[in-house]
Amino acid sequence: MPKQASAVVLLSGGLDSFTAAAVARAEGAALHALTVRYGQIHTCELDAARRVARALDVVEHLEIHADLAAMGGSALTGAGAVPKDRPLDEAGIPATYVPARNTVLLSLALAWAEPLGARDLVIGVNALDYSGYPDCRPEYIEAFERLATLATRAGVEGARFRVRTPLISMTKADIIRRGSALGLDYGLTHSCYDPRRNGRPCARCDSCRLRARGFAEAGVTDPLTAA
Amino acid sequence: MPKQASAVVLLSGGLDSFTAAAVARAEGAALHALTVRYGQIHTCELDAARRVARALDVVEHLEIHADLAAMGGSALTGAGAVPKDRPLDEAGIPATYVPARNTVLLSLALAWAEPLGARDLVIGVNALDYSGYPDCRPEYIEAFERLATLATRAGVEGARFRVRTPLISMTKADIIRRGSALGLDYGLTHSCYDPRRNGRPCARCDSCRLRARGFAEAGVTDPLTAA
Repeated sequence: MPKQASAVVLLSGGLDSFTAAAVARAEGAALHALTVRYGQIHTCELDAARRVARALDVVEHLEIHADLAAMGGSALTGAGAVPKDRPLDEAGIPATYVPARNTVLLSLALAWAEPLGARDLVIGVNALDYSGYPDCRPEYIEAFERLATLATRAGVEGARFRVRTPLISMTKADIIRRGSALGLDYGLTHSCYDPRRNGRPCARCDSCRLRARGFAEAGVTDPLTAA
Repeated sequence: MPKQASAVVLLSGGLDSFTAAAVARAEGAALHALTVRYGQIHTCELDAARRVARALDVVEHLEIHADLAAMGGSALTGAGAVPKDRPLDEAGIPATYVPARNTVLLSLALAWAEPLGARDLVIGVNALDYSGYPDCRPEYIEAFERLATLATRAGVEGARFRVRTPLISMTKADIIRRGSALGLDYGLTHSCYDPRRNGRPCARCDSCRLRARGFAEAGVTDPLTAA
C-alpha cells in the first residue's frame, strides 16, 4: 500500500473547513490540522476546531497564535460591530472581512508543510455562497501556489505546492450534501460570527444566514439549530 | 506640504532591516514598524528591534507573536545547531533557513498595511551577500506583490501594494556604507544567530561573518565588535 501523502489542512471549526478536510481525507490524504488563533472574537470557533479535529482523526492538530486583532480593520477581531440581517447577495466586501487573513493562514500552513514534507495545503474557501472576500477567489489561490513554490527550499528543489480548494465551486447546499454523504456531524461545528454568551448562534449574521440557507436548500436539518 | 505616505517596515533588529527602514524614511515614508516574534532562539534580536525603532523615530512599533518554532524545520527556531565557520559562498540553503519566514512576515505586514492605508511594505532582503534563502529573490518579491493585490479589499478597489526592497542589489559593504552615510548607529543592532549568554556575538555563524566581511570591505569599524 503506498504511503499516504500528508496534507496541511486549515481547520477553523466551521462547516466549510470540516468538509474540505473530510474530502481531502476521503481522497487519501493524511491530515495535519492547523488552527490559527488570529484574535477572532468568536473563540468558541476554537473549541469547535478541536472537536472537528478529533472527529477527523487527524495525525496531529497544531494550534498557533498570530494576533491580527492588534492590527485592526475587521469586525471579526473587534473593530466595529458584526453586521446583522444584511442582504446576503449584496455586492461589496462586508465589515467581517479580515485584512489578508487567508494570506496569513496559508503562509502559516506553508511554514508547517515544508518541514513536514507535505505538498498540499487544504483550505475550505468558497467562491459562490460566500461573503465576497477577495482571498477566496480562484485567481488568488493560483497566485498563492506560485508564491509558495518561489518562497521555499522545497520549491527551489523542484517541489510544487498545491492549494487544494475542494469547495471553491460549490454552493453552501452542495457542501452540506457532500459532507452529509461523508457522514459528517455538523453539530460539532460553529459558524456564527457573533454568538450569544452561551455559545448559541445569533441567527442574524451573514455566516448564520448562509448556513441556514444552505441547510434549507440541501433539505438537511442543521443539528446546531434543531431544537 | 503633502502628507507623508505610510509604510509598514519589517524590523528584525538586524542591520539590514535598520538600513532598509532608514532608506524608506529618507525617501519620505512615515514608518510603522512591525517586529514578529516567530520563535527565534536569538531573542536579543527583539531588544535590538526596540532600540532601532526608537532610533528611527517610527510612528508606532507593533510586536506580534507568530510561533514558527512549533513547526520545526530551522536551526534558528531550535531544530538543530546553527552552522559555524561555513564557507560563506557555499552553494545551497543552510540550516538557518526558516520555512516560509518571509511569506509569513510579509503577510502580517500586509494585514497591518491594509487597515492603516499603507501601500508600501519595506523589507531588508538582499540577494547578493546573503545566505541563499529562496524568499530573498526578486522573483519571489514580485510574486508577493501580485498576491497582495489579489488578496485584499484595497487591491480589489484598485490599490497596488508595493514591496520595497532598497537593499536587494547591494553587497553587505554597500549597505553599511549607505547606512553610515545616513548616520545610523549599527551598535544598536544585533546580527548573530547564536549569541553568547551575555548577548555578545559568536563571530562564527554566517550572520556574524557576513557582517564582519561587510564592515571590513566598507572600511568601517563595527561598533558592536570594536573592543
